[in-house]
Amino acid sequence: LLSPGMTNTITEDVEVLVLLPQNNSYLFSHARVAPAILYAQQRLRTDGGKFSGFHFNIHFENSDCVNDALFLLVDRSCGQKPDLILGPVCEYEAAAVVRLASHWNIPVISAGALAAGFGNKNTEYSQLTRIAPSYVKMAETFTAMFEHFTWKSALLVYEDDKQERNCYFTLEGVFHLMADFNIKVYPFFPEDRLDTDDILQSIYDTEVVIMCMGADKIREIMLAAHRRRLTNGSYMFFNVELFNASSYGNGSWRRGDKYDSDARQAYASLNTVTLLRTVKPEFENFSMEMKKSTEETGLHDCRDCGSVNMFVEGFHDAMMLYSIALHEAMKSGYSKKNGTAITSRMWNRTFEGIAGQVSMDDNGDRNGDFSLMSMTNVEEGTYEVVANYFGVNGTFQLLPAFNTDHFTLKGRHKAHAETPDKSC
Amino acid sequence: LLSPGMTNTITEDVEVLVLLPQNNSYLFSHARVAPAILYAQQRLRTDGGKFSGFHFNIHFENSDCVNDALFLLVDRSCGQKPDLILGPVCEYEAAAVVRLASHWNIPVISAGALAAGFGNKNTEYSQLTRIAPSYVKMAETFTAMFEHFTWKSALLVYEDDKQERNCYFTLEGVFHLMADFNIKVYPFFPEDRLDTDDILQSIYDTEVVIMCMGADKIREIMLAAHRRRLTNGSYMFFNVELFNASSYGNGSWRRGDKYDSDARQAYASLNTVTLLRTVKPEFENFSMEMKKSTEETGLHDCRDCGSVNMFVEGFHDAMMLYSIALHEAMKSGYSKKNGTAITSRMWNRTFEGIAGQVSMDDNGDRNGDFSLMSMTNVEEGTYEVVANYFGVNGTFQLLPAFNTDHFTLKGRHKAHAETPDKSC
Repeated sequence: LLSPGMTNTITEDVEVLVLLPQNNSYLFSHARVAPAILYAQQRLRTDGGKFSGFHFNIHFENSDCVNDALFLLVDRSCGQKPDLILGPVCEYEAAAVVRLASHWNIPVISAGALAAGFGNKNTEYSQLTRIAPSYVKMAETFTAMFEHFTWKSALLVYEDDKQERNCYFTLEGVFHLMADFNIKVYPFFPEDRLDTDDILQSIYDTEVVIMCMGADKIREIMLAAHRRRLTNGSYMFFNVELFNASSYGNGSWRRGDKYDSDARQAYASLNTVTLLRTVKPEFENFSMEMKKSTEETGLHDCRDCGSVNMFVEGFHDAMMLYSIALHEAMKSGYSKKNGTAITSRMWNRTFEGIAGQVSMDDNGDRNGDFSLMSMTNVEEGTYEVVANYFGVNGTFQLLPAFNTDHFTLKGRHKAHAETPDKSC
Repeated sequence: LLSPGMTNTITEDVEVLVLLPQNNSYLFSHARVAPAILYAQQRLRTDGGKFSGFHFNIHFENSDCVNDALFLLVDRSCGQKPDLILGPVCEYEAAAVVRLASHWNIPVISAGALAAGFGNKNTEYSQLTRIAPSYVKMAETFTAMFEHFTWKSALLVYEDDKQERNCYFTLEGVFHLMADFNIKVYPFFPEDRLDTDDILQSIYDTEVVIMCMGADKIREIMLAAHRRRLTNGSYMFFNVELFNASSYGNGSWRRGDKYDSDARQAYASLNTVTLLRTVKPEFENFSMEMKKSTEETGLHDCRDCGSVNMFVEGFHDAMMLYSIALHEAMKSGYSKKNGTAITSRMWNRTFEGIAGQVSMDDNGDRNGDFSLMSMTNVEEGTYEVVANYFGVNGTFQLLPAFNTDHFTLKGRHKAHAETPDKSC
């Protein structure tokens, strides 16, 4: 007689195709993420649980964030197709891969593909499960704030590199979700001179400025805003910093130049929306293992290597979620080749991820938790988390460090009269 | 002994995959464009010239303007790959197909794929030849005008359907090319209420308004601008109408409603950039044949069926251009499978197309000729072509009907003082 534990064990070989960049400049490079996937594989195999019968054959292939992932998938397509695809992360590359995988009924799980367009799971992205919170999920934080503070208008200022377009897609999420608000956009390109005069001219008839761009350019805009006395509370400034949140909080206004003091004062008006950091005890071991792996591969000088980012965490959890869904689907009599049966079982469920609970919405997109950071000590120029947004129930939670006055728009008419409109 | 004509004849079978929509709502549907391709095939076979040895096996497959074209190409890829791909037209679908075709070194010629991004032929679109003038080529008309009239700033107002995104891509061309000017954008979505107040508020600090949207919405904006007295010469209004130009010129201000008179006056300030129409005698026969073919297939009620549009013309000329290049490449010892050798011979050359001379630039993109139309009789509300732009040499040619006063910005300060800014 089989033990109760054994009755649940289902044996299956699973071909996994992982599409991640070999190029270590990415936060989701192979060197950083592969250890998390292998860690998950190891956990699944050795914990003696119901997933120990799954044998994952993991093939890593290069994604160049342009087309390599698609070409690899297509060029392999005449032979055996994979049962599961992990990645790609980059939007344009993921779009092509997910479309084809959906056409072939192969589940795709990515900690990327964060753009608003991927939310359409009816047809072309039907097999996509997003294991990290998308840009639209991030945008919910702004909706919650706008409703809480009764703001009505925003200008989205972003640098559009026309390549990966992370900032374009980040603020597209805001634009997409906040259609009922008065939203204007101000894109600029890396090769352009940053025309702070023109940007600040554009903000006069809005209340909130939401920025996505490199830290130096944010500082330039904030300094210019400060010079024009726009940081006196008549405007709200935000930036969005999703991936390398650890570089925040230590005061990115500081450069050791003569503008530091002005920048510190200017940044008193700048608030940052970032991922909520959660830690549970098991995470420490995972985190240490990841650190060891990246050190072993010689990844010493990479950005934020000390911390597990959302991509590393996400792809680990992807293996967990897929195993849960495959197990359920096979118990219900479906084969691993029935992508639809497996994908649908990854959606609308909550499970324990490596860092904490992971909640997937009924559209297969992870619910996100975000933090709002503000400068709470202007003398020191230090930041604290002042509020959290929890995507699973849409609550906006104010923390003790929260200061209502800081988020109250002041002197709107006065600010308008200050516009340098010579025609008046 | 072979006659001189015969020495040039090279025999080859060429597999052509044509990717066009079966759906007749497109101006480039299979029913409209296929006759032009078959007409070209027939001409090449029967004119006894040096291309008569080419035997084109033409396979028509459906493009749904989403992903069908890619899936068809991929699913066929395990067997024989085509030697030439014609289409797709729609941007997103073309992007995927051209990338894969370029990866496989297969020439692609499209009368679509007009977006700025396709101009990058270094890597992912290396095999793409664009046989119709792209949006960036159209934008040259605006650059020429801005330089001629020393305008400096523009607001781009467009409807973004988030599907095919024709207007987004059209004005992206302007945005892309006119980076040195002061350009702002105002996108709106089909589901949004058209907020003419907000749009007109946004134009106050610009000189030129360039619009791309449905005719009814343009009329709404022009009427609102007229009510606010913005059509007094203090702003220049343009719309872009590339594909169904024949619906212009007959006065699209007219609706038979009570606003016709106001609209006619408002449209006195609206100028239209459209494709330059050229005709040569041979075109008449082609045009009649095309009309007959579309009537035979029962396409009676389609938009603009009476006229040959740029897609129909373009795909005809694509067959000609490919034949010229294939012939040259084979004479130089290259096989039909050497896409790079063939594609490079389609670029940087001028040849006789069905409607007139076709000039391809050294990046494989057709140079465009455009017309500027203005209302020349306000009493009657009739339009004329007042200027032409010739892409091949970048000249902006004023016609007798051109009126300098019409294009001179007036009373800029006065207009500013009229802004309903209560803070003054």
